[in-house]
Amino acid sequence: MRMRKKKWADPYLQEHEDLALADPSVYRGKWHELLQCEKLHVELGMGKGDYLITMAHMYPEEGWVGVEKDRSAAAVALRKAVEEENADWHNKRMIPGDAEDMEQWFAEGEIDVLHLNFSDPWPKKYTHKRRLSSEKFLDIYRRLLSSDGILQMKTDNKDLFEDSVMYFLHSRFMPEEFSVDYRRKEHPEDAVTEYERRFLDLGQPIYRICVRPCRRSGDMLE
Amino acid sequence: MRMRKKKWADPYLQEHEDLALADPSVYRGKWHELLQCEKLHVELGMGKGDYLITMAHMYPEEGWVGVEKDRSAAAVALRKAVEEENADWHNKRMIPGDAEDMEQWFAEGEIDVLHLNFSDPWPKKYTHKRRLSSEKFLDIYRRLLSSDGILQMKTDNKDLFEDSVMYFLHSRFMPEEFSVDYRRKEHPEDAVTEYERRFLDLGQPIYRICVRPCRRSGDMLE
Repeated sequence: MRMRKKKWADPYLQEHEDLALADPSVYRGKWHELLQCEKLHVELGMGKGDYLITMAHMYPEEGWVGVEKDRSAAAVALRKAVEEENADWHNKRMIPGDAEDMEQWFAEGEIDVLHLNFSDPWPKKYTHKRRLSSEKFLDIYRRLLSSDGILQMKTDNKDLFEDSVMYFLHSRFMPEEFSVDYRRKEHPEDAVTEYERRFLDLGQPIYRICVRPCRRSGDMLE
Repeated sequence: MRMRKKKWADPYLQEHEDLALADPSVYRGKWHELLQCEKLHVELGMGKGDYLITMAHMYPEEGWVGVEKDRSAAAVALRKAVEEENADWHNKRMIPGDAEDMEQWFAEGEIDVLHLNFSDPWPKKYTHKRRLSSEKFLDIYRRLLSSDGILQMKTDNKDLFEDSVMYFLHSRFMPEEFSVDYRRKEHPEDAVTEYERRFLDLGQPIYRICVRPCRRSGDMLE
């Protein structure tokens, strides 16, 4: 999902620093207040923002924050949201930044739902540690997720999915839902992005898993 | 995989009661001795026996027992093994019987590897309890598997696979290997049956999971 660098990206992001936040840390611990919501969703690697924007419309009472470290992609997402008809920012923000820094932006237990959609699979073994479902990130997510917080992951990539299931188990994240072909059933509650549509049109399955961090030592055994 | 009842099945099975055992309970606790092996494999629902027969050839030092409750299928498997060139029964037996009774046939900790290959998916909700990966069976397998025993499951059925992953986790069986398209990589160590070949030829994925029962309360948390 990497795109060519866009020259207009940086100036555009700077122009809209109130929407694509240059310093998200000022809202640390205050996201629910800022977005007037009880449930805070954070999408890591929002790409061009289709999922985030659509879901923010579908669930106006919930808060949506999209993180994207590719500044060109983040700028495309931002522009899409700025230019849409009836643009509405009451319940969403974007963060052009690296998920590695997210503990500076979110307080412990502040996030209710984490979304990983079609994350970069980092196929080479020595790059696996950069995967957003790898151990280092799971440690961060555990701290940032609320007591009944959940992580939802969708991907088309078999290797990433298989490995991630094992990462989750080894890091004590317990699966709650699990699908090897998520879209064979209707899921109107979950937006299909253009990117996802491409796989569906090719007849390729979407893999999905939802996990919760185990908090007590007994959780994984019940 | 249900087949038409074959009239010749019962007489044929009776004629070979030493190979397709009428009373397997006489070997309870003695299978390793009987089959001269250190590693005992048991396939539940062997169908027409292709996997069992091929694997018994591939691993002559290991013991192989195939269980099949459909007596017509068991008879077809038996005849296939009896009539093959260089038929060799030193390391295999068949049991025309119901896996529900397997605690009468095997002693605690006696089985090293359990195989579930393309088990009946029992799609209707009220029949799920008959699935060979359902809770009732997992309780039995936990007792019968050796201390480092493992359960290997392959299937083409999405619903059965998704549900089984959850059954395993809830019954404290920890995944060790997990694949949503097992045959996209070469696995010469594992026989491809005619039945499996059909799915591969149609481009359909084979799902596979290997699990171990957790013995200590900490196992699922490591």
